[in-house]
Amino acid sequence: MHSQTWKAMAMAALVVQLCTSMGVDSSSPHPDKIARLPGQPHVGFQQFSGYVTVDGNKHRALFYYFVEAEIDPASKPLVLWLNGGPGCSSLGVGAFSENGPFRPNGRVLIRNEHSWNREANMLYLETPVGVGFSYATDNSSYVAVDDEATARDNLVFLQGWFHKFPQYRNKDLFITGESYAGHYIPQLAKLMVEINKKKKLVNLKGIALGNPVLEFATDLNSRAEYFWSHGLISDSTYKMFTSACNYSRYVSEYYRDSVSSICSLVMKQVSTETSRFVDKYDVTLDVCIPSVLSQSKVISPKQVSERIDVCIEDETVNYLNREDVRKALHARLIGVRRWEVCSNILDYEVLNIEIPTINIVGSLIKAGIPVLIYSGDQDSVIPLTGSRTLVHRLAKELGLNTTVPYRAWFAGKQVGGWTQVYGNILSFATIRGASHEAPFSQPERSLMLFKSFLEGKHLPEVF
Amino acid sequence: MHSQTWKAMAMAALVVQLCTSMGVDSSSPHPDKIARLPGQPHVGFQQFSGYVTVDGNKHRALFYYFVEAEIDPASKPLVLWLNGGPGCSSLGVGAFSENGPFRPNGRVLIRNEHSWNREANMLYLETPVGVGFSYATDNSSYVAVDDEATARDNLVFLQGWFHKFPQYRNKDLFITGESYAGHYIPQLAKLMVEINKKKKLVNLKGIALGNPVLEFATDLNSRAEYFWSHGLISDSTYKMFTSACNYSRYVSEYYRDSVSSICSLVMKQVSTETSRFVDKYDVTLDVCIPSVLSQSKVISPKQVSERIDVCIEDETVNYLNREDVRKALHARLIGVRRWEVCSNILDYEVLNIEIPTINIVGSLIKAGIPVLIYSGDQDSVIPLTGSRTLVHRLAKELGLNTTVPYRAWFAGKQVGGWTQVYGNILSFATIRGASHEAPFSQPERSLMLFKSFLEGKHLPEVF
Repeated sequence: MHSQTWKAMAMAALVVQLCTSMGVDSSSPHPDKIARLPGQPHVGFQQFSGYVTVDGNKHRALFYYFVEAEIDPASKPLVLWLNGGPGCSSLGVGAFSENGPFRPNGRVLIRNEHSWNREANMLYLETPVGVGFSYATDNSSYVAVDDEATARDNLVFLQGWFHKFPQYRNKDLFITGESYAGHYIPQLAKLMVEINKKKKLVNLKGIALGNPVLEFATDLNSRAEYFWSHGLISDSTYKMFTSACNYSRYVSEYYRDSVSSICSLVMKQVSTETSRFVDKYDVTLDVCIPSVLSQSKVISPKQVSERIDVCIEDETVNYLNREDVRKALHARLIGVRRWEVCSNILDYEVLNIEIPTINIVGSLIKAGIPVLIYSGDQDSVIPLTGSRTLVHRLAKELGLNTTVPYRAWFAGKQVGGWTQVYGNILSFATIRGASHEAPFSQPERSLMLFKSFLEGKHLPEVF
Repeated sequence: MHSQTWKAMAMAALVVQLCTSMGVDSSSPHPDKIARLPGQPHVGFQQFSGYVTVDGNKHRALFYYFVEAEIDPASKPLVLWLNGGPGCSSLGVGAFSENGPFRPNGRVLIRNEHSWNREANMLYLETPVGVGFSYATDNSSYVAVDDEATARDNLVFLQGWFHKFPQYRNKDLFITGESYAGHYIPQLAKLMVEINKKKKLVNLKGIALGNPVLEFATDLNSRAEYFWSHGLISDSTYKMFTSACNYSRYVSEYYRDSVSSICSLVMKQVSTETSRFVDKYDVTLDVCIPSVLSQSKVISPKQVSERIDVCIEDETVNYLNREDVRKALHARLIGVRRWEVCSNILDYEVLNIEIPTINIVGSLIKAGIPVLIYSGDQDSVIPLTGSRTLVHRLAKELGLNTTVPYRAWFAGKQVGGWTQVYGNILSFATIRGASHEAPFSQPERSLMLFKSFLEGKHLPEVF
């Protein structure tokens, strides 16, 4: 009850904030337009980047990178992309390693043939403050940042951004992203649905969550079985990792700075067996040796195929730290010396990981918002098995019948993965051969999934 | 007791047979030498192929292909390679698709840089009669062929072959192969150990079994869990596939021509979900579309990487059916119109699959023969989880302690897989990213595993 009152007050304050932050003149020219990124090839679409201030005192500003659709942007929807962490960059991971139009390669940028701006106007947001080029002038803003503040800031950002780009305000909006964005996205979407009840502010048409954290224990504990079935741990360690100390217990203890001796023992054994030279975000494919040796990574997209640059993260860090690149992006370094993939200064409320968001996903479905939950199947961090179980359970709770039975789907002439749809509103899909960052390791299959999602169509059943 | 008497008699007969079949003059020139295979590049090593007659009436003859080691064959061991099926060809699958020196590519042969003849003198045997170029003039020889007859013929073959190549008789001998060779190899090795007790005939130094059938129920039933954990079937189908009808029950019923309605239902559901466009022998990688559409394959090695020809099987079939190739190989087509990957004329006692061979592996270890059991980890047909469980259980039964704890091993600078060694005589290893035919899909890692196996060394712990 008390909580309900508090929530109503917070909501009222947010509406006021959204209505008073509309200070940008939409008829002015675009100061955020990117003339050209250093090393980029010629392209026919426009790019923008810059800041949207998210509080009244202008102490906190979020950085975005916006790529208009390659062809006829006016006919295409708007898609907001969010990476996870919490604390990792949608610019460096999402845009420059996964589904953006370019990937850094030495001094130049090369075209990503499966960029998602083939299908949509793509908006990449570095959030919350303290991530990448986003900043607060007051360092205390980086402390105790939580899911609720992040969702609110993200919504305020979007309203501010609509003032810079009013032509996108009434467009169909989709939100997608991965990993900890399994928190960010449902929470932001929920705010939108609530706000829309009072005054239609956004035209939310669907959300897609890739390898998302949705329910702490189920997601994290599916890792043991994943390790075992993929050969990374022995029979005896698997037994310990499910009976003596499971992963959710370990993480819970770790975040509370009280790791028990049994969990410490089990985790040491698991770490020894799995090897630091295996990318847990993609257990099958090779690692970028300099990255592993530097031990500096939180998110590490890597791959073996010659078409895929396993050292893309190193390339991105180098590229985004060039002064000419920063200048072209209208980006500033405030309070930090370098742009980082995942923030070193943000002190996020890590215990927020224990907040279940699968029930929020359920409430969105009840509100008529289509949801897709997809899994790169080579990811051991948030394994497909946990996500599939959660979706199946949610469908049952909501009384949704299977409308597309579990079956393979196709991209080109090959199986792109498997899918199941419930009540034509809740979908599960795997992406075969994909990592935690699916669009990085399987760009063609990911683009096909994305296209079907935007069009509200079932994934191709044949080729 | 009765069985023991019969066995003793059979053994005596076999010794007589082995001693009377030594009709080839070892000082004669090699009529089996291959001058040159059509389309092959120049190489410095010798190749031989031809027939060894395995019965007194000369009605049955086994075809072999022998590749001397690339450098200094006299210093290298002899390795006998056997494919499985039962009924599939060691020439077409083992030699030309997996670990031989050449792979067919259109009109030519290209070099396999990771050919196992870099480390050993490789002898590929098409067995039993009815497989590939091996034949019997009497068609009744193809009926009711079983494990016992196959093991005996294989031993007789080897003795005959030693008369053609006496310089290899006293060499260190290793036997390796995959799949149903999990029956062929331990059974042949057991015969060798028994014969050696009477008169030292072979110098057996170890066996290596890749994705082998060792114990029917454990191997086959691990498939359900593999499908589920790799995303090929739904939660609900997984439940049915473990409770209502498991895979060993289905296969058992199928071979007895008495499939129950429940098993029929479950298998239909499993087949529908897994999709025929996914290679069950390598669930991650792409399929050769013409091969899938022709539906003619028993064994189907396929892969996505540009370095790997996913249509190698089609290429091999075309190559080995060229008349000039057959002539160069001294091969004949007796009673068949074409060379086939897996035999159409052999009527093998399929129920022999239910004979456990893991206990034979145990007896070999007791006799001092080192054993390696390895698993390509993308194979759902004989999954790594079943093999690992069987090895772990056997080690426990034999009272062997772990001498190398479960850990990653390296090929180059990447993790090649995981390994565990018991009592320095029984080893388990996975090959990361490898199919049922591991040397086909992961040639570099497989060669490293093979080299360590021959040298009796532990797999590399670092790079």
